[in-house]
Amino acid sequence: MTPIAHPPETLEGWYALHQIFTVDRRALRAFDAPTRERLEQHLCVALAELASPAEGGWSAPVRLIGSKGDLMLVHFRPTLDALGEAQRRLAREPLMDLLAPVYSFLSVTEAGLYHITAQLAKDAEQRGGTVGDATYAEALAQRVHAERSSAHVQRRLYPPLPGEMPYVCFYPMSKRRRVGQNWYALTLAERSQLMYTHGMVGRRYAGKVMQVITGAIGLDAWEWGVTLFGKDPLEFKKLVTDMRFDEASAQYAEFGEFFVGKTVPAEEAVRLP
Amino acid sequence: MTPIAHPPETLEGWYALHQIFTVDRRALRAFDAPTRERLEQHLCVALAELASPAEGGWSAPVRLIGSKGDLMLVHFRPTLDALGEAQRRLAREPLMDLLAPVYSFLSVTEAGLYHITAQLAKDAEQRGGTVGDATYAEALAQRVHAERSSAHVQRRLYPPLPGEMPYVCFYPMSKRRRVGQNWYALTLAERSQLMYTHGMVGRRYAGKVMQVITGAIGLDAWEWGVTLFGKDPLEFKKLVTDMRFDEASAQYAEFGEFFVGKTVPAEEAVRLP
Amino acid sequence: MTPIAHPPETLEGWYALHQIFTVDRRALRAFDAPTRERLEQHLCVALAELASPAEGGWSAPVRLIGSKGDLMLVHFRPTLDALGEAQRRLAREPLMDLLAPVYSFLSVTEAGLYHITAQLAKDAEQRGGTVGDATYAEALAQRVHAERSSAHVQRRLYPPLPGEMPYVCFYPMSKRRRVGQNWYALTLAERSQLMYTHGMVGRRYAGKVMQVITGAIGLDAWEWGVTLFGKDPLEFKKLVTDMRFDEASAQYAEFGEFFVGKTVPAEEAVRLP
Amino acid sequence: MTPIAHPPETLEGWYALHQIFTVDRRALRAFDAPTRERLEQHLCVALAELASPAEGGWSAPVRLIGSKGDLMLVHFRPTLDALGEAQRRLAREPLMDLLAPVYSFLSVTEAGLYHITAQLAKDAEQRGGTVGDATYAEALAQRVHAERSSAHVQRRLYPPLPGEMPYVCFYPMSKRRRVGQNWYALTLAERSQLMYTHGMVGRRYAGKVMQVITGAIGLDAWEWGVTLFGKDPLEFKKLVTDMRFDEASAQYAEFGEFFVGKTVPAEEAVRLP
Amino acid sequence: MTPIAHPPETLEGWYALHQIFTVDRRALRAFDAPTRERLEQHLCVALAELASPAEGGWSAPVRLIGSKGDLMLVHFRPTLDALGEAQRRLAREPLMDLLAPVYSFLSVTEAGLYHITAQLAKDAEQRGGTVGDATYAEALAQRVHAERSSAHVQRRLYPPLPGEMPYVCFYPMSKRRRVGQNWYALTLAERSQLMYTHGMVGRRYAGKVMQVITGAIGLDAWEWGVTLFGKDPLEFKKLVTDMRFDEASAQYAEFGEFFVGKTVPAEEAVRLP
Repeated sequence: MTPIAHPPETLEGWYALHQIFTVDRRALRAFDAPTRERLEQHLCVALAELASPAEGGWSAPVRLIGSKGDLMLVHFRPTLDALGEAQRRLAREPLMDLLAPVYSFLSVTEAGLYHITAQLAKDAEQRGGTVGDATYAEALAQRVHAERSSAHVQRRLYPPLPGEMPYVCFYPMSKRRRVGQNWYALTLAERSQLMYTHGMVGRRYAGKVMQVITGAIGLDAWEWGVTLFGKDPLEFKKLVTDMRFDEASAQYAEFGEFFVGKTVPAEEAVRLP
Repeated sequence: MTPIAHPPETLEGWYALHQIFTVDRRALRAFDAPTRERLEQHLCVALAELASPAEGGWSAPVRLIGSKGDLMLVHFRPTLDALGEAQRRLAREPLMDLLAPVYSFLSVTEAGLYHITAQLAKDAEQRGGTVGDATYAEALAQRVHAERSSAHVQRRLYPPLPGEMPYVCFYPMSKRRRVGQNWYALTLAERSQLMYTHGMVGRRYAGKVMQVITGAIGLDAWEWGVTLFGKDPLEFKKLVTDMRFDEASAQYAEFGEFFVGKTVPAEEAVRLP
Repeated sequence: MTPIAHPPETLEGWYALHQIFTVDRRALRAFDAPTRERLEQHLCVALAELASPAEGGWSAPVRLIGSKGDLMLVHFRPTLDALGEAQRRLAREPLMDLLAPVYSFLSVTEAGLYHITAQLAKDAEQRGGTVGDATYAEALAQRVHAERSSAHVQRRLYPPLPGEMPYVCFYPMSKRRRVGQNWYALTLAERSQLMYTHGMVGRRYAGKVMQVITGAIGLDAWEWGVTLFGKDPLEFKKLVTDMRFDEASAQYAEFGEFFVGKTVPAEEAVRLP
Repeated sequence: MTPIAHPPETLEGWYALHQIFTVDRRALRAFDAPTRERLEQHLCVALAELASPAEGGWSAPVRLIGSKGDLMLVHFRPTLDALGEAQRRLAREPLMDLLAPVYSFLSVTEAGLYHITAQLAKDAEQRGGTVGDATYAEALAQRVHAERSSAHVQRRLYPPLPGEMPYVCFYPMSKRRRVGQNWYALTLAERSQLMYTHGMVGRRYAGKVMQVITGAIGLDAWEWGVTLFGKDPLEFKKLVTDMRFDEASAQYAEFGEFFVGKTVPAEEAVRLP
Repeated sequence: MTPIAHPPETLEGWYALHQIFTVDRRALRAFDAPTRERLEQHLCVALAELASPAEGGWSAPVRLIGSKGDLMLVHFRPTLDALGEAQRRLAREPLMDLLAPVYSFLSVTEAGLYHITAQLAKDAEQRGGTVGDATYAEALAQRVHAERSSAHVQRRLYPPLPGEMPYVCFYPMSKRRRVGQNWYALTLAERSQLMYTHGMVGRRYAGKVMQVITGAIGLDAWEWGVTLFGKDPLEFKKLVTDMRFDEASAQYAEFGEFFVGKTVPAEEAVRLP
């Protein structure tokens, strides 16, 4: 029996943590100028350490604008343990005591191989085999290996911080499981087709917006995180609007809170507003 | 293939930020009178600076009445960066430490060109072309250019603070994507017709209520912000009631919190209740 | 074209504000007895001033029992500005610093003329005219004038505080706009019929429960407020249960939080528990 | 016209208040031992006074286990005013300042006479009369009188604190009014049948779990409160599971938060954890 | 009459409590080093006592990573009273005053005997008997006894802390009761089949992920808790994704918040970040 609604194969790369904070300004103002400056310098050193850790990945501060928070820290690391270490490194900083967490999101970079999985499932059906049999598994291993080493998948699993795209937009999302709008009850072929169209929308923004997709099933109540980097924040509005008219989003997507801001150097980030 | 459910073309103008605060009255009362007066004067200076910035746009304080907050600050600016600067300018004021944020909304003024987009799509279909082909793009560019320079679109993208309409009502909203009530699954022609009827309701209030529509897709969890300015607050009730019976609202709209108040001069706004 | 789902004509009277507070008992206990007594007397004077203002309307304290709050203040005023003044008058009282707002509701007394509107719409149809044409407008003006000056509408728009009914129950509500349960998609005749039946339930409680209906569309996220005054609080349970079986409520109503208590003289209200 | 969906007759007894608190442990620890002991003794006296008031009813402390709160106080009183007095008596205790309210629920004990109402409605129909006519009213009065004085209804309206059942489970619930799952659109006969089956489940737990049903329509956002007393807390799981498979619950019930704990003597309750 | 939608027989073992806390870092930093060390040692002793109590069960600290909390304490005990004692033992520790509870979940280990119940119901039907008759009851008692003493059920009811699987993922869940997606309206045979398929997914992760299922009906608003232990946190994502495509989850499951972390020795857990 070939399960029809099986999940797509996925590749995972770095673990990701998005931390959003608000500043306790009254407490901050209670410090005298030298104390405050010293604490800022300390935090600046911590952010510099975290920016490009030996084990890989990176951390970057994003100053939020008009959002429910004041500052977002985005961390990518090869392991969950390394993420935990980054989190604890920050927690040791006295200035971080004045940053109250308003949201956090744990996930891992993900490349969904919808097309390959759908193709292999179709092949299996045509040759009278099943998803997961030896032929399938062998073909899959080859395709996955090829995919993983491709440049575009590497960029999705180990995304660089794009210096020339300073604006950032982050939001979590899930797929619906309602009667009549149940993503998880669609066949893989249907999901593959919808994701293909969805991807086409994103490609129209190549060079203008970089998307980082992170998977959060089993890690968070939301299923995915979307982190957009852009040259012009208006492109976030254009891109997300275009996608909302996609069937994949129009029928099946639920969205959480949106956080918008701009990456800033550590020395600017620590000068809390 | 002509996508049926594609979004309307839109024009954008100023970025907008609505900040809603409650006053920490106990902390305020702890100040002695001269200190309080000094801090009020400081904040007054800041509000005056922000009221008509060199780069364009404006900021205005709204004293809320019977709302979940005490004070709303509305900012319009040509860029997201300028909004961020306004936000940080305020955060530097000690009196702002006593204003706890209860809500904030980031968006950008928007003119939805439903009618033009629907017209061009229809033209494309009749001539056997597609949405987005060269003929379409050229016609679109002409129409958009004409629209953008028209007086009524200019007013929508760069709305003045209407001095003769001191009452303000702000609320966020979204369009539904439920089974049987999915705005994003309607054809552009259907959406265009519904928005036309919706617009007719608004026009009946011309001279009594000024509407500022700001788009927030990609910037906030809600999709639009509506800021109404009126001579008589009862007109807010009449207008919103009329619209709720519109099919566009009756079937497809979701509304968030409502904030109602009155614009006040900076020197009055800083005398926190 | 006669719009089928147009709203009923409504009459409005006083603006209304319901403020619900919890007491910070620890802060209250920190005052010594003379200070506390002085502050209570101050607040008592304020409540007395607000009780029957020169411009009309009234304010009354309600001590809540078993509710999410400790004290509810209900204000009626001829204008939104007068409501704002009442709110600021209270905010100047030091004892009010110890009352944390847990809920507030802004609305305006409303008499929905469903029956008249439905009748006039039917007349228009029969004579081949339209809702809003000259004949309709003239007839409407006459009927509205007659209604407004009638004693029972005056009582709905300018409700007295019924001294002999000390128990109070307040809750906000809205009408649904779901698929299959969409109040705003019913014809006016259907809504008129449902509201008539709904009103009959209320009439059975005449002399036992006084209902004050206030409209909040355009002012609050909820669409109406219901304030009940009764001789016996058990009648609130009976009345609201009977109404819940009404089609207007059973199919179309959504309810918010309920606040129940008893009006008390100002001197008792200020002795915070 | 016999209304089909009319409510069942109900009998009411004591008013009930469930108060749930969390302890501010840091503040508690700041007291020195003698002060803390004195405050505990004071509160102990208050709880003893409230335990069996002259006017009837009772109050009992429940130490919560693994719940969103630390302590639940359950009060039953003949009048709403007496409940309010109990509430204020507690509020005067300094130790209560350290108990932050996390939930409260106001209701009144209720015996729903589904079976009798359905029977009388059927009788009325058969004799060509209507619900509420003279014959119906007379028969109803007789039946209600007989019911009210029966021992099992007396126990439902004036429930004792069952000393041999120390475990307590409290949760609020409502009946749905959704399309396809609308309790309030069922006929009385249907509701009567469903409640009969529902009651049968409860009876299987006689001697193991005592149920106290309190009605909250018109008093709270939830429509009923369920307070279970048991010898073994595992029976709460068994009973509620069995009921969830009942059609009355499976299709029509919504549940709120659950609070589980154990009654303790006043002297133990005041030793806050 | 054989009830079709009756619940499956279940076996229960240890009561379980999941406590999730955030650290008040500013208060923690206010302690001088010796005080902090002393309090840490005290808490360490408490955690050691709780780790393997005489009456059975265990307690273990989990350091959360990227979650809404900082620390999770998981307790298993033979009785509800013993859970309460564990909770109060912790509450006596001064360092626990600095840990604000953000979530708690009370449940009891559960083995759902879907297959056996379905089998016995089928047998009863075939022999013309009913669920619950003498033959059924006897057969059930035998089967339940055999199941309870089996090694795999013992592991489910009295789960060990798997030392070689340090990563932990906890989330609550419920089954839906919506129109068209109502788990409680399925026949036992249907539920049995769905749970069988669901279980097969879990088995594919044997040796990689250990699942502990705890039942919470009658104890919490959510119906079940799932606690996963794993060697590699990526397996949480894989497992939960696979299950989400199961019909049991895709159609019928609702999920709450997810908490992810790693078990740490007591001496490490008390060094709060």
